[in-house]
Amino acid sequence: MNTSPVPSVQYSVTVRMEYPHEPGWMARIASAIAGQGASIGSVDLVHVRHGQSLRDYTLECASTDHAHHVVEEIKKLDGVEIQSVSDDTFLMHLGGKLEIRSKVKLKTRADLSMAYTPGVARVCQAIERDPDSSFNLTIRKNCVAIVSDGSAVLGLGNIGTRAAMPVMEGKAILFKQFGGIDAFPLCVDSQRVEDIVLFCKMVAPTFGGINLEDISAPRCFQIEQALKEDLDIPVFHDDQHGTAVVLLAALINALKVVHKEPGDLKVVVSGAGAAGVTCTKTLLAYGVKNAVVCDSKGSIYDGREIGDNPAKAWLAEHTNPDKLKGHLDDVIGGADVFVGVSQPNVLSVDGVRAMNENPIVFAMSNPDPKIAPEAIEGLAAVVGTGRSDYPNQINNVLAFPGIFRGALSSRARQINEPMKLAAAEAIASVVSPEELSADYIIPSIFDSRVTRAVAGAVAQAAQETGMAQRTPKDTIAVWA
Amino acid sequence: MNTSPVPSVQYSVTVRMEYPHEPGWMARIASAIAGQGASIGSVDLVHVRHGQSLRDYTLECASTDHAHHVVEEIKKLDGVEIQSVSDDTFLMHLGGKLEIRSKVKLKTRADLSMAYTPGVARVCQAIERDPDSSFNLTIRKNCVAIVSDGSAVLGLGNIGTRAAMPVMEGKAILFKQFGGIDAFPLCVDSQRVEDIVLFCKMVAPTFGGINLEDISAPRCFQIEQALKEDLDIPVFHDDQHGTAVVLLAALINALKVVHKEPGDLKVVVSGAGAAGVTCTKTLLAYGVKNAVVCDSKGSIYDGREIGDNPAKAWLAEHTNPDKLKGHLDDVIGGADVFVGVSQPNVLSVDGVRAMNENPIVFAMSNPDPKIAPEAIEGLAAVVGTGRSDYPNQINNVLAFPGIFRGALSSRARQINEPMKLAAAEAIASVVSPEELSADYIIPSIFDSRVTRAVAGAVAQAAQETGMAQRTPKDTIAVWA
Repeated sequence: MNTSPVPSVQYSVTVRMEYPHEPGWMARIASAIAGQGASIGSVDLVHVRHGQSLRDYTLECASTDHAHHVVEEIKKLDGVEIQSVSDDTFLMHLGGKLEIRSKVKLKTRADLSMAYTPGVARVCQAIERDPDSSFNLTIRKNCVAIVSDGSAVLGLGNIGTRAAMPVMEGKAILFKQFGGIDAFPLCVDSQRVEDIVLFCKMVAPTFGGINLEDISAPRCFQIEQALKEDLDIPVFHDDQHGTAVVLLAALINALKVVHKEPGDLKVVVSGAGAAGVTCTKTLLAYGVKNAVVCDSKGSIYDGREIGDNPAKAWLAEHTNPDKLKGHLDDVIGGADVFVGVSQPNVLSVDGVRAMNENPIVFAMSNPDPKIAPEAIEGLAAVVGTGRSDYPNQINNVLAFPGIFRGALSSRARQINEPMKLAAAEAIASVVSPEELSADYIIPSIFDSRVTRAVAGAVAQAAQETGMAQRTPKDTIAVWA
Repeated sequence: MNTSPVPSVQYSVTVRMEYPHEPGWMARIASAIAGQGASIGSVDLVHVRHGQSLRDYTLECASTDHAHHVVEEIKKLDGVEIQSVSDDTFLMHLGGKLEIRSKVKLKTRADLSMAYTPGVARVCQAIERDPDSSFNLTIRKNCVAIVSDGSAVLGLGNIGTRAAMPVMEGKAILFKQFGGIDAFPLCVDSQRVEDIVLFCKMVAPTFGGINLEDISAPRCFQIEQALKEDLDIPVFHDDQHGTAVVLLAALINALKVVHKEPGDLKVVVSGAGAAGVTCTKTLLAYGVKNAVVCDSKGSIYDGREIGDNPAKAWLAEHTNPDKLKGHLDDVIGGADVFVGVSQPNVLSVDGVRAMNENPIVFAMSNPDPKIAPEAIEGLAAVVGTGRSDYPNQINNVLAFPGIFRGALSSRARQINEPMKLAAAEAIASVVSPEELSADYIIPSIFDSRVTRAVAGAVAQAAQETGMAQRTPKDTIAVWA
């Protein structure tokens, strides 16, 4: 990532510099910055004193090294004095990104005696009599744990719990901003399946749901399975199910664009980790009959050596009906859909040329898609990526806030397949037939209709499938 | 608690009623309420329409049954129609008392790309290179876990994790309001020592400190000991250490009032649970030489049967030099100080009469003190209780917010004895010599000087004893 040649806000720095308050200086500085290939985001005046301007320049660079280089070049300008440089991304993360606040005002002893002792004892005793009332009388009503062991974080791999925290805090922000849900990150200092399962079971009474995050395969499957069997709150591994839901939403609308049916498709999936396995299962559940999944050793087929990996064993049994063998480029021929959820840049342009007419390419790896969309312009009928700077961003934030919103509202015991399918259809439905086009198959993450649509569809599916433990009209007794 | 005859805000209800908008009605209703022994907190007008007033009466009652009874009596008034009744304490707890908020604003894709992917990856990698930077770049900097197993909650006993949550949420509010600390409650669904230890170790990388809460003795001692050995963040069992610190602060100032020295005192402690054991140890560390601790079977002395309880074995060895035997009233004679931290109302008035001249009584059980202060008016020289409606409230909120504030600021590895002693002396010092009197030995919990004084003293003691891992002047690099 450090070698990206394009200036980007993620490498933005704010440089505070002083120079003579005379015409021409800003042009001189801007030229020096442009000459180094950096972009100026903003220029703010701090003050003018004694004929000198003090200004903050926010510069978008291409990498940390590039930022250092740009700063060195500015320093060379005679008359310019750099007072400080701060890295805007680090500044934003300083001290963490979350705070915990009280929803009740404590101004007097009377407030305190209701929120805390002695009044709180009455609430405790009410929950002791009826443990289910904890879903109304504590934060469980709206609170989700984000649990990670730091073993498969973004594209960074097994970076551990401490280094995973900034991602989990960011996820909590997304839960709040897009779903109105209070989510708290819990990074777990063990990568043993039984420890993580025990941890989640122990902490479950504090929360209304558990979002597993960035836990590597195949452990993520075992952990999720064990928790689903024993807990009465929803457990959702977003890397699997969130990704699968948004992919399905994108496919539903892409098929409308190319006028194909799921049962007629050949789909090739690159990646057999958490996302690859579950995306494939979801596509099969939706009606896809011919899917071929490739891991780092090539296509998975019945009879191939796959090691002790039940998820891959399942794939070997249920996919690749024609037992295609070989690497991605060997099996991509004639495919209608490509789904990339592994390392970036594995699909070649020739691979896309070998696909069936009107191919659909979902290159979802983040931050770098598996193939640059500009490289296949005109070749693929529909292209979706995980990035915000191309059309059709396949982003989990379209799914998980609404899915949990619906699950919490209905107090769903689990998030089952019909609820996920309902979520995918709800996301797809936000794009109206008039709006639908190859460049607009999926709504923007800032489209506020998405969470509402998803939450409603998920809650309804929970009711219809007997998962809901609260109906929307359940009133909460506060006069017992 | 349900039989308390005095109306209290903890049993307040809001009754919305409609009656003719004519003179005399409010007097009639107020009389009916007063006749039932309830107090009117406030009367708010909702509206006047068609000659009828709609008003909300907030009534303080003496119990839930009493509130029901009062409402029934109001219903009997001809012309008054009750539209709704809500229990104010339950209303305050509805949906939980905490929310989680983002400290950073996400308005644009650029914000998102710094707070979350792809920009967040740079922060993750910085922490991966230097795990200690998690104390600057994540919520650890200011975040404490409140961990409870629900085994010894307030005076309610072993009510379990779900029922304990409202207390832990309340504690989090106190952390924020009095210490500016983000605290999150984690109620743990196991009461096995090894499970709770494993849980805390696993979750430690998320937090800057762990506050153990309402865990019964002797398990609390074992859990705390195991965690202190293995973790590099402070672990503090507030029921033990917070109580001991505030008790010591109260004693320091009470001794000034009665002109006695710690080495000359005979102290009798009622209760050998978490608080009793640690209060006693702290008093001994402060210079008390003669302490006698009573549990439910009477005084603890060297040679008494105490079962498999290392804490009591320690007490048998280090306290009660005269090997006094018998129940509280048998050993209280000649005592200078009584400390009550067990079931309420165990010290008799005759017991107080049998104490030494100018006796000090700390009846700290909450919500009901061990002896009613009015019963010993004139007998005891200084009386302190756990309640806010008597002078000298011995409340842990004077200690834990400042102690954690100081520990987090200095990144203390542990909260050691010198730090606790410094905290007690800081609390005591807030009461100036001019202010000090038998009725004012301890500052109000709303005195904002307390947390500042405690935090400063604790951070300084951490520096002096080599516990600090950050000096106050450590700057945080944001331009690496």
